[in-house]
Amino acid sequence: MAVLEKYPRAKLGIGPTIENGFYYDFDKISITDADLAALEKRMRELIKADLKFKKEKISLAQAKKLFKNAPYKLELIKELQKSKKPIIIYKTIGNLRFAISDFIDLCAGPHVNSTKEINADAFKLTKIAGAYWRGDEKNQMLQRIYGVAFETKKELDDYLKMMEEAEKRDHRKIGERLNLFVFSETVGKGLPLWTEKGATIRREIERFIVDEEIKRGYKHVCTPDMARIELYKKSGHYPYYKDTMYAPIKIENEEFMLRPMSCPHHFELYLSKPRSYRELPMRIAELVKLYRFEKSGELTGLIRVRGFCLADAHIICADEKQAQEEINGALDLIEYVAKTFGFEMGKNYWYRLSLGDRKDTKKYFKDDSAWNKAEKILRSLLKERKSDFKEAKGEAAFYGPKIDIQMKNIFGKEDTAFTVQYDFVMPKRFNLRYINKNGKEQEPIVIHRSSVGAIERVVAFLLEHYAGSLPLWLSPVQIVILPVSEKHVDYAKEIFDSFKQENIRVELSDSNETLGKRIREAEIQKIPYILIIGDKEIQNQTINVRHFKRGQEGEIKISYLIEKIKSEIKNKQ
Amino acid sequence: MAVLEKYPRAKLGIGPTIENGFYYDFDKISITDADLAALEKRMRELIKADLKFKKEKISLAQAKKLFKNAPYKLELIKELQKSKKPIIIYKTIGNLRFAISDFIDLCAGPHVNSTKEINADAFKLTKIAGAYWRGDEKNQMLQRIYGVAFETKKELDDYLKMMEEAEKRDHRKIGERLNLFVFSETVGKGLPLWTEKGATIRREIERFIVDEEIKRGYKHVCTPDMARIELYKKSGHYPYYKDTMYAPIKIENEEFMLRPMSCPHHFELYLSKPRSYRELPMRIAELVKLYRFEKSGELTGLIRVRGFCLADAHIICADEKQAQEEINGALDLIEYVAKTFGFEMGKNYWYRLSLGDRKDTKKYFKDDSAWNKAEKILRSLLKERKSDFKEAKGEAAFYGPKIDIQMKNIFGKEDTAFTVQYDFVMPKRFNLRYINKNGKEQEPIVIHRSSVGAIERVVAFLLEHYAGSLPLWLSPVQIVILPVSEKHVDYAKEIFDSFKQENIRVELSDSNETLGKRIREAEIQKIPYILIIGDKEIQNQTINVRHFKRGQEGEIKISYLIEKIKSEIKNKQ
Repeated sequence: MAVLEKYPRAKLGIGPTIENGFYYDFDKISITDADLAALEKRMRELIKADLKFKKEKISLAQAKKLFKNAPYKLELIKELQKSKKPIIIYKTIGNLRFAISDFIDLCAGPHVNSTKEINADAFKLTKIAGAYWRGDEKNQMLQRIYGVAFETKKELDDYLKMMEEAEKRDHRKIGERLNLFVFSETVGKGLPLWTEKGATIRREIERFIVDEEIKRGYKHVCTPDMARIELYKKSGHYPYYKDTMYAPIKIENEEFMLRPMSCPHHFELYLSKPRSYRELPMRIAELVKLYRFEKSGELTGLIRVRGFCLADAHIICADEKQAQEEINGALDLIEYVAKTFGFEMGKNYWYRLSLGDRKDTKKYFKDDSAWNKAEKILRSLLKERKSDFKEAKGEAAFYGPKIDIQMKNIFGKEDTAFTVQYDFVMPKRFNLRYINKNGKEQEPIVIHRSSVGAIERVVAFLLEHYAGSLPLWLSPVQIVILPVSEKHVDYAKEIFDSFKQENIRVELSDSNETLGKRIREAEIQKIPYILIIGDKEIQNQTINVRHFKRGQEGEIKISYLIEKIKSEIKNKQ
Repeated sequence: MAVLEKYPRAKLGIGPTIENGFYYDFDKISITDADLAALEKRMRELIKADLKFKKEKISLAQAKKLFKNAPYKLELIKELQKSKKPIIIYKTIGNLRFAISDFIDLCAGPHVNSTKEINADAFKLTKIAGAYWRGDEKNQMLQRIYGVAFETKKELDDYLKMMEEAEKRDHRKIGERLNLFVFSETVGKGLPLWTEKGATIRREIERFIVDEEIKRGYKHVCTPDMARIELYKKSGHYPYYKDTMYAPIKIENEEFMLRPMSCPHHFELYLSKPRSYRELPMRIAELVKLYRFEKSGELTGLIRVRGFCLADAHIICADEKQAQEEINGALDLIEYVAKTFGFEMGKNYWYRLSLGDRKDTKKYFKDDSAWNKAEKILRSLLKERKSDFKEAKGEAAFYGPKIDIQMKNIFGKEDTAFTVQYDFVMPKRFNLRYINKNGKEQEPIVIHRSSVGAIERVVAFLLEHYAGSLPLWLSPVQIVILPVSEKHVDYAKEIFDSFKQENIRVELSDSNETLGKRIREAEIQKIPYILIIGDKEIQNQTINVRHFKRGQEGEIKISYLIEKIKSEIKNKQ
């Protein structure tokens, strides 16, 4: 009503409720953020006016007449008719003292009986955005107004405060502030370019996980990021995952695809020679680049991108017993990795047992007894580990059930961070075999798993979790040295070299800015150690140490400090 | 003649001379390797028969009649006519005592006057292969017979011996024998899949070069392997390098390309914020995956592939003086890397100064004075460094001259291993700028350089250089422990664990095979250290050490051995 008063010719799209609030799409309006306060004010008046709503079921002819100037509603009516659903409207009942006209909208309900049921102090219009009609970019672009609504003002205030805090922790903003990654229109959406600093974080994580996996008996291999389309037809990813795969590259009568998954590549390696039970379990691992064409509307900083790097592995197991042990081992690794990153089970992440749906044979491979067996194995494993977990139907892979490790970003959106999947389909498709103890051919079971998950996504989670103040071992710059004045620069350079020699990431900040300003800059850049060098430090051959979490640590002997920092890095602190 | 006697209906293709020999393509024959000896024998008889050749220029009409049953020759004749070249034939002169008919062939000459001029003991048919007519796979597949020919038998023998040696060193064979990488028809040609062992070699090289470059002030970044086609139009790679680029990926009204080069990506990073002279030289480095669509006929093991990983960098320099210093630094790094790998300048690699051609403005950017200046800088630099170098016209990049570091593979084929390039074109195209000391905008110079070059290619060179016996630090398995019998296994496992704890790549070979057989297997696998454990070793708490290059090293205390091996690895021995 408030919008229609301001723009009588506005055409209404849809206006559903969403988590914590609602939105409404309009055509033929032109609203800016500055207009939202005035709209809110008018909405408050309309709420207080206690406008009653009436529900009515109307005929198609009535509907067509009533909405003759509302093209988007007519489209919705046509669809209702097609699916033989009733046409229901809600309208205010003629209290025209407060509104210029009655408000009528197509709405299946349920609906409040009166505007008064809404707490006028507990809602807020939060932002405006562009949105294509029905989410299809071939359609008209509409203006969308977002709002949040709660029962009490306190809830609203808490939410707004949380959002403010979240804004500060938003990895996209932190990435910009700390100069970790950028996007380029020319390169393309969803394809981040990592600066030296961001690439350093990646490298630390990549080396950490590769080394840890090798210690745990994984065989790290290296396979191409693309293959002929035949490989993905063999695996079933094409046409199964066709919608999220990049289009084929046609060349010399062949078609190549960028890989959306690495399993078929690892299976080809497995197939390169005959295998014996002695080689199993074979843990084929790789830091793979994967390519999935996400819709532009779904791209979110580093959390959802169009090319990412996954610490992936496929474990070829001789039998169910071995599969069970390997899943256990994979979960041990995941929990170790999460702990190293500072994520707490239950608080920062939780388990989801993702099950198939026996009836949905389009989405899931048909083999009831295999599904039952596999799901039972995963469930009893989680129980044995005493892991809290939720079950979720219809979230499995097409080849079997899985255990997903779920995390939320600062805005509360849930995503899968790590995953362990049970696969009884691919071994058949690829005709994977091994010679068992009795000299006979046997079909193995495959476990798909990630450990740190996608590097891009885990960096996003880490930046948000630590609000940019990463642990020492992950910090792009670990130490900054600040000589108090010109005459302290030489000694500062000596110290700088000592750290450099130990491959510690150190910077020297010797510009003409005041010490205070340089300290502030180092704090904004979230550098863990700030070392200040003045007369006293030179005289005592010490360093004045300030740690970003522990605060002032006073004067410390250089040799001791180097050892201390080296040990902290080694212990991933 | 020899082939025609055996296959009178054979259709002749072309038969040019090539390095060290010749080939001839035939249709309608069916020859196997087993037939080559008989053919050779007949060829020797024909040679000794002293058949004379006569050169004749003939008319188009004559040619059409003469070659009416030789469709491939007719095609060549048509082309000669088109380009208005004379039609010349050579034919034997009726000495039919020795041959079933005269031999007539289309041939521009020159030609021997008699078969006798060929040394019958100094040639050999080496192999047969399939070859498309005119190298185009849309055409008929012909059978190609290869041969070599020398002046003396000794030259032939020397050549065959060299080839035999080369076969042993062929990285493709070594790769198979040591199980380092495989190819899969389903994945695609020229796209190697690296096993755990091969991937280990890669990882060692990759970490070595990244760490070394960071020490030398390079900023290692991470940019996407693809971009919108607009980026490569901006850089000029499209359509310049179009022929070696993969076809575009068309999706959501956009076209994406796999990158053939990383420079445009690094420039986009440079452009992401304003730059000051204080930041220069800026050494932007990355271990990049690059994609070039090589023709299937040109693919050679790991030396020429369709996707490879380059240790690439682009150094943004303030001016010519800085550019000169940076090129010098890049050459220092390259020489250091080569030395670490065990390659000797002059012996295993040499410098090539690759110059442009002022007249060829299609291939080279037109700017005579810039070319002159840049070429002079590179030439004087090489002279100053007292480097031996050859100059090569027409080998420059389109944006400037370069210094290439050339190596030969074991078959004598030369390829560029590393490169340093001077670029005065890209800064203009990308509008790269920085603020100089006087606060004014200025255009920088860009140096493109690789350090270890393509990882795939350098692994190939290393495998051939060392005939598979890689230095300790690069060996996929560094140590194998061989317990003499069952009762020594427990102690062997203890030793195994001590090495494992130090992240040394160790294997335990405790199968039921004899010790001798296990030693031989370890030698075939080129494992640097073979440690044998028997009664005496257990009693003395020592290990019996055998080094693959230095031979028996006797009994050594374990703690000492661990330290010794750790230090050898650290020093890249």
